[in-house]
Amino acid sequence: MSFATTMLRVDPRPLPHIDRAALAECIEACIECAATATACAEACLSEPDLPELTECIRASLDCADVAATTARVLARHPAYDANLRRALLAACRVAAALSAEECERHAERHNHCRVCADACRRCEAACQSLLDV
Amino acid sequence: MSFATTMLRVDPRPLPHIDRAALAECIEACIECAATATACAEACLSEPDLPELTECIRASLDCADVAATTARVLARHPAYDANLRRALLAACRVAAALSAEECERHAERHNHCRVCADACRRCEAACQSLLDV
Amino acid sequence: MSFATTMLRVDPRPLPHIDRAALAECIEACIECAATATACAEACLSEPDLPELTECIRASLDCADVAATTARVLARHPAYDANLRRALLAACRVAAALSAEECERHAERHNHCRVCADACRRCEAACQSLLDV
Amino acid sequence: MSFATTMLRVDPRPLPHIDRAALAECIEACIECAATATACAEACLSEPDLPELTECIRASLDCADVAATTARVLARHPAYDANLRRALLAACRVAAALSAEECERHAERHNHCRVCADACRRCEAACQSLLDV
Repeated sequence: MSFATTMLRVDPRPLPHIDRAALAECIEACIECAATATACAEACLSEPDLPELTECIRASLDCADVAATTARVLARHPAYDANLRRALLAACRVAAALSAEECERHAERHNHCRVCADACRRCEAACQSLLDV
Repeated sequence: MSFATTMLRVDPRPLPHIDRAALAECIEACIECAATATACAEACLSEPDLPELTECIRASLDCADVAATTARVLARHPAYDANLRRALLAACRVAAALSAEECERHAERHNHCRVCADACRRCEAACQSLLDV
Repeated sequence: MSFATTMLRVDPRPLPHIDRAALAECIEACIECAATATACAEACLSEPDLPELTECIRASLDCADVAATTARVLARHPAYDANLRRALLAACRVAAALSAEECERHAERHNHCRVCADACRRCEAACQSLLDV
Repeated sequence: MSFATTMLRVDPRPLPHIDRAALAECIEACIECAATATACAEACLSEPDLPELTECIRASLDCADVAATTARVLARHPAYDANLRRALLAACRVAAALSAEECERHAERHNHCRVCADACRRCEAACQSLLDV
């Protein structure tokens, strides 16, 4: 059992109308995406084709910040305001999709971009799932 | 001249279609809002009516995280993707408005809530201004 | 294989003098600690004995911020400056120990404090391991 | 009057043994340093001599994360644990000094590095002042 699942299980509040499994998946997908994008931006700085990777670095840094904040707000407020949740999930979905698109352009040459693209697509899908509820 | 204004002035890129004054105001409003909301949540924890302030603390913590990330993305990407900018500004406007509403309910009793409400309203207005462009 | 391990494996740089397994463990322990402490502070705000939990909330919020930043710096700079690494690991170890001590005082009454104390102790130990190298 | 000064003035707790002016200066220096380093890393990505700026970008990103977290912990805990305060101030001083050194090497060619070096040196000095108390 993951730590997000564990923490939602021991939360003292009732959480009606919340799909705890989907919420835990989204929190963990955001956290993994943020950490992976941070590492990918760093790895890109060491590549010989760095000048072609600047948009990928920018998208990764944005995605890391937005996904980390989304994980925090989701972890903090399982029963929060629906408007904030939806607006932030929408922003995170866009940030993850942009970062995935950039990384996919370099995934054949760079393994870190391939791994990062996967983490971003997982995050994008998890945000979309919560928005679809 | 503020540091956000200074950094936008020395940025090497052309920034067509960008109102640099409005962008600098939004970056600084987000930064001030994030720092003020962090301090307000902390001050609320010291108040004797703490049990009535829990929603105010939650809203302040959310607002601090979202506004700090918005400032970073805006500072990083003056010419960024318009979809990410708009989605994140929309989320920040909601977070700032929610925090302002909570703080305004306690502004007569607590000076820190009064100051924080002002910083949140300034942030909300600055995000709206960039969205209106 | 965890995502931190994966990203270190696909990093293009040589990483001599680095114990990759210990580094990956520390990055993941910091990330889990940060997310768990964020959720614990939130859960504390819902407890009936909230007035006795204010120091626990403060320690959790501090720990969440310091551990998240430590994970970022470690993920970004596997070959970074040793002085920054050591100073930040020392700060994170202190923040995790303080949060663990507070949560342990409430672990019998609150499951979220028990889970959070474990995550903080794992983070403290992982920071100490990298400092001992 | 700055917002950090304002928030310290309206904080409900007694703050004995604390030099509020020095604390406010450190909080604001950390916040300005974090925002400036974020913008400098971004500007470096647009420069034609990008391959020579990778260490500068890394140092700026580290500094931005550490200074932002230091500002939060200082803003949150005016009466916090002295061990955490000192360990984090020490880490922030190192991060700011490293970023300043990198930026100073490029300050003649790049205005953003010159401005960023100044913000980092101010942050370094403010951290040192609080450590000297």
